[in-house]
Amino acid sequence: MNKEKIYDLVIAGAGPAGISAAIYGVRKGLDLLVVTEDIGGQTNWTGDVENYTGFMMITGAELADKFAEHTKKYGIPIKEQEPLVELKNEGRLLAVKTTDGAYTARSVIVATGKTYKKLGVPGEEEFQRRGVAYCATCDAPFFAGKTVAVAGGGNSAFEYAQQLLGITRKTYIINLGKEPTADQILQERVLGADNVELMNSSMIAEITGDRFVQGIKVRSQDGVPGSERYLSVEGVFVAIGLTPNSSFSSELQKNENGEILVDNCNRTNIPGVFAAGDVTDVPHKQIIVAAGEGAKAALSAYLYLVRN
Amino acid sequence: MNKEKIYDLVIAGAGPAGISAAIYGVRKGLDLLVVTEDIGGQTNWTGDVENYTGFMMITGAELADKFAEHTKKYGIPIKEQEPLVELKNEGRLLAVKTTDGAYTARSVIVATGKTYKKLGVPGEEEFQRRGVAYCATCDAPFFAGKTVAVAGGGNSAFEYAQQLLGITRKTYIINLGKEPTADQILQERVLGADNVELMNSSMIAEITGDRFVQGIKVRSQDGVPGSERYLSVEGVFVAIGLTPNSSFSSELQKNENGEILVDNCNRTNIPGVFAAGDVTDVPHKQIIVAAGEGAKAALSAYLYLVRN
Repeated sequence: MNKEKIYDLVIAGAGPAGISAAIYGVRKGLDLLVVTEDIGGQTNWTGDVENYTGFMMITGAELADKFAEHTKKYGIPIKEQEPLVELKNEGRLLAVKTTDGAYTARSVIVATGKTYKKLGVPGEEEFQRRGVAYCATCDAPFFAGKTVAVAGGGNSAFEYAQQLLGITRKTYIINLGKEPTADQILQERVLGADNVELMNSSMIAEITGDRFVQGIKVRSQDGVPGSERYLSVEGVFVAIGLTPNSSFSSELQKNENGEILVDNCNRTNIPGVFAAGDVTDVPHKQIIVAAGEGAKAALSAYLYLVRN
Repeated sequence: MNKEKIYDLVIAGAGPAGISAAIYGVRKGLDLLVVTEDIGGQTNWTGDVENYTGFMMITGAELADKFAEHTKKYGIPIKEQEPLVELKNEGRLLAVKTTDGAYTARSVIVATGKTYKKLGVPGEEEFQRRGVAYCATCDAPFFAGKTVAVAGGGNSAFEYAQQLLGITRKTYIINLGKEPTADQILQERVLGADNVELMNSSMIAEITGDRFVQGIKVRSQDGVPGSERYLSVEGVFVAIGLTPNSSFSSELQKNENGEILVDNCNRTNIPGVFAAGDVTDVPHKQIIVAAGEGAKAALSAYLYLVRN
């Protein structure tokens, strides 16, 4: 590792925000490096994209491929499988640590996105990719004709259920609250199906199985202590939200959800540190928004570098 | 005109920001209308676009076509050649006036963009499209082998000069300041050519001609009163900046350049009024940025409508 080297810009993350930032950074002639867990980010797990302005219809995976192709064209240096673990403000320089390396930069763009929240119950880790899933678009097809459970009661959970009810034998929705919080129209659409069962005030307490998931223990929150019901399912879709990947810094200002606060030019509270995409407090999680935010962050970083 | 009708959303402008907003608004089921001077906005006059994330290379005109196609797919109602002339806050409703109509809406997205600043000298209006031009990408090819003048000394002026020097016989750069403000590298590239002449501390005082431009009167700012020089040119490219199309409202908060102030969700100071793209104080004028900002504005308008 070259400890002497100082990058103009290190970009953490290579989803639509990070890629867009990298393209703009390279075009501005910045000496930059991208460190990331994967390329494409959540775009990889998105189904049909009909609202990326300019494309009529493209799948998330195809769009992710186009992003990757775009980075290759510009020869953007990317260190893959190196997620950001620490970001420190060291006066006029920024210290960036990943799982495998340490880098120094004059500016940083944080585009680390969000990841799915976990239930944190026994069996969840063990059966990941063996029946436990976090993305209906990616994994629903594997459960054709089977019985599955969806954990959650918001729009995501009901969208997952909607995708699943057409192909599974039966779908349970295990909702912690007294009532789902999903949009009324979505609830009506899902609950109108005869192979869906909604269980309110309930939580998955354990996921059990042999090599693959075979069932879940569901605990009712409605009084009656110890009332546990066993449901025979072969799949568990966890749809209880997303959490921003922002724990690498305690210096960055965040909101109560852990999202990094940015202004309309993607500046954070630390000079030289910019943030873009799902990791920020901009509430609209859309590919075109992330791409625009990434471009803005790079242009703001460029202006910062020119002026400092 | 149906005076009773109240739209959920009126979008003023159909550049990348307005089109993107319309696509998102329609997908959210909003009853919306687009009023605009033209479709595509400045994208129409952009040369090769290499940085619209996802497309390797596309011309501005092609991208504008894709935008138009995208709006047709969604059946977005567009009133063309109806620029916004007044926007008034009437309590919970917004009154929108265009050159030809008056509309009432619960929310408005202002995406009216910018237009080229004019010199404001005799002959400029008269010879527009007869030798006076504001866009090198659009009009440079008409001046092959001719002598032209570029008014300005910033990046735009030097980019115009760069496009022109390859095809014209001679290009004058008439710069008001003592020195150009364009990036050093761009200046070197342009001024290294032997068919370019830079005139600092100078202004075009008049554009003269018969049916077409034949010459300009250039006045020196360096003392010597009355020192005017006549230059024989067949084209004048005006590159002295852009001005935001925001004069339709005195209620909207703007910065000293007339750009509408927005937060990171594209909200303005008027509840229900959002702004996106070049008309805002976000300094980065890029198609992908405008498209992202338009999408954000529409999603913010949707949240506003749901909550109010």
